Amino acid sequence: MRIDSIDFVYLAMPEILDIGDGSQDALLVRVCAGDHVGWGECEAAPLVSIASLVCPMSHSACKPVQASVLGQTIDNVDDIRRIGNLVRANSLDLLQADHTLSGIDIALWDLLGRRAGEPVWKLLGYSQSFAKTPYASVLFGDTPEATLQKARGIQSKGFRAAKFGWGPFGLGSVATDEAHLHAAREGLGSDGILLIDAGTVWNTDVAAARARLRALKEVRATWLEEPFVSSALDEYHSLSAESGTVGLAGGEGCHNFHMAKHMIDRAGLKYVQIDAGRIGGITIAKDVADYATTKNVTYVNHTFTSNLALSASLQPFAGLEADVICEFPTELKSLAVAMTKNHIVPDENGQIRAPDAPGLGIEPDLAGIQPYVVDAEIRVGKKILYQTPSLSR
Amino acid sequence: MRIDSIDFVYLAMPEILDIGDGSQDALLVRVCAGDHVGWGECEAAPLVSIASLVCPMSHSACKPVQASVLGQTIDNVDDIRRIGNLVRANSLDLLQADHTLSGIDIALWDLLGRRAGEPVWKLLGYSQSFAKTPYASVLFGDTPEATLQKARGIQSKGFRAAKFGWGPFGLGSVATDEAHLHAAREGLGSDGILLIDAGTVWNTDVAAARARLRALKEVRATWLEEPFVSSALDEYHSLSAESGTVGLAGGEGCHNFHMAKHMIDRAGLKYVQIDAGRIGGITIAKDVADYATTKNVTYVNHTFTSNLALSASLQPFAGLEADVICEFPTELKSLAVAMTKNHIVPDENGQIRAPDAPGLGIEPDLAGIQPYVVDAEIRVGKKILYQTPSLSR
Repeated sequence: MRIDSIDFVYLAMPEILDIGDGSQDALLVRVCAGDHVGWGECEAAPLVSIASLVCPMSHSACKPVQASVLGQTIDNVDDIRRIGNLVRANSLDLLQADHTLSGIDIALWDLLGRRAGEPVWKLLGYSQSFAKTPYASVLFGDTPEATLQKARGIQSKGFRAAKFGWGPFGLGSVATDEAHLHAAREGLGSDGILLIDAGTVWNTDVAAARARLRALKEVRATWLEEPFVSSALDEYHSLSAESGTVGLAGGEGCHNFHMAKHMIDRAGLKYVQIDAGRIGGITIAKDVADYATTKNVTYVNHTFTSNLALSASLQPFAGLEADVICEFPTELKSLAVAMTKNHIVPDENGQIRAPDAPGLGIEPDLAGIQPYVVDAEIRVGKKILYQTPSLSR
Repeated sequence: MRIDSIDFVYLAMPEILDIGDGSQDALLVRVCAGDHVGWGECEAAPLVSIASLVCPMSHSACKPVQASVLGQTIDNVDDIRRIGNLVRANSLDLLQADHTLSGIDIALWDLLGRRAGEPVWKLLGYSQSFAKTPYASVLFGDTPEATLQKARGIQSKGFRAAKFGWGPFGLGSVATDEAHLHAAREGLGSDGILLIDAGTVWNTDVAAARARLRALKEVRATWLEEPFVSSALDEYHSLSAESGTVGLAGGEGCHNFHMAKHMIDRAGLKYVQIDAGRIGGITIAKDVADYATTKNVTYVNHTFTSNLALSASLQPFAGLEADVICEFPTELKSLAVAMTKNHIVPDENGQIRAPDAPGLGIEPDLAGIQPYVVDAEIRVGKKILYQTPSLSR
């Protein structure tokens, strides 16, 4: 069968707040091939990914992403990799292309899984979808007291692990950060797995990160995530030599396999965090999971948005029994909840797993998204290159 | 003074051919601050860079590029770096942002140079703009015979160096590639500097690249450019161990300092090729030039488009006397010629240099571009986020 259509639908909350909450908008992707449909999601900046799907060609190595997807044969999983390679070659000079491809790749895996009646993790070669320990992913409070209350709330909901990130952390004094760290530990209780996300706040400043290590060790943080930007391999490596029991985590900014490989090989990471909605989709994320395993680096999903994106991000390491920690956004905006009819919820042990249902096992809610659909249009010359599609079919 | 406006103007040839010629479209950038104006250019995919300039915010680390530029103070060169850092932080999750920032950064250097009455290279701290040996940058012919004719043409025009790339090279048999290589050498004459650009055609296939090394050595190629994609550090490094007199060149795909640093440190390059229109502008390109110098790697500009982009790409290494080779596109489409009133032309010795005139020393031709202006519009909800500006002011 051939890929007949790619539909990108931009969804957004009525108001977007200037906070580190990625669930405030979404780019829902639908791919149709014959009678078959698959759904995916691109991470962040929906309008830019739409533009990169439909833009006019600049030259032979800067084509719109759709030029390498529409009309392509999609019969088996090898076709997904072939299409990804085509996009990377034909859109080599189009920087946004990796993010755009990601949502399409995810939708193609969903499509093939639905057609086969198999979950994506089975198509990836795994025999089982292992239970993962979700960490509640929340923003730091504005004050240490607010962080304490957030941590108590998470603990009372039964989470065994929590990640605090962004907000004021790293922007003020070391003492304030230490107060936040101790508040998080206190609220979570002494048994909880505590994870800290610096959100690249120190850019490449190793000294600034180093100044927080003492408190991070005191509160027994399992990891310090993204002290630096994704490509700062040498800075990560320097810090890792001193971080002791606090493992370094990073990699969400990687938008291709090579970047993730360098992080694994050269950044001293204990945890590599991959967003299937950025790195080129499930195909490349699985390559990274395979590679991380050979290097004794633990694979963790990065997920910022809906449960559709969550399922996509869980698939690449669903079958890795030892890699148990997983990100589970728990402060989702209503849009990200309304986007899907079903949701991934913790079981009686507080654990989650990639669904057993065909494809990604997540059903988009086309009625539910209606209030959030953004009406957008891109015109070049007399040609309308993009108009928000209706998704009725 | 404050940045009052950023205008992006999409220019394109009436017909875009499916060939490796980057001069078929352009994104002209104008930045105004008070009474001062500066001009820049972003490399490739104009519509996508426009979208990333004006898109709605997704969250605090995924803002449109203009959010970190408009209204900012621009009094001196430190402000340019500060604005770039703001863009990288506030648009962290917007992949296209580095390309978009590049054109703005270039325009800001031009603006400050024009205001000061000094060329950009002087603002960068250089005391002199040294003569560079331009290589004529052309596509391989469709046949070895066509390549021979092209090479003869270049030689007859007085170029001492020529680069052949893209076209059929690397896509067919080793024997065909060898015929092209020998044709290029024959046409150029035994004294000419011969450079070969594989255009990432082998992706990460070291064996495919290795198979061409014998002929590359026979024809005394000075460099083999981009046998692999930009981040394939290990593959570059493997090939460099065998490439002998044929230096490896690469780096044009780098979109931040870290990527270029890794190429310099770990890819076994003799030449690092930086496009100021991609890497984040003149600011980051100069950082790379400084770093390359400390590592005995030769800096070379990558330039694919107009003479405005060429001047921008020459500035970062204008003052490096030893780094003499420079890219000089010689098959420019009429758009790229019409874009500027003046042009960078070889002197009586066949050499070129970054202009001595204030700023970039290149004057956009607002009448000349008119036939190529693309009328584009982006609407989100009821808001028109982008409309082709008129540039009359």
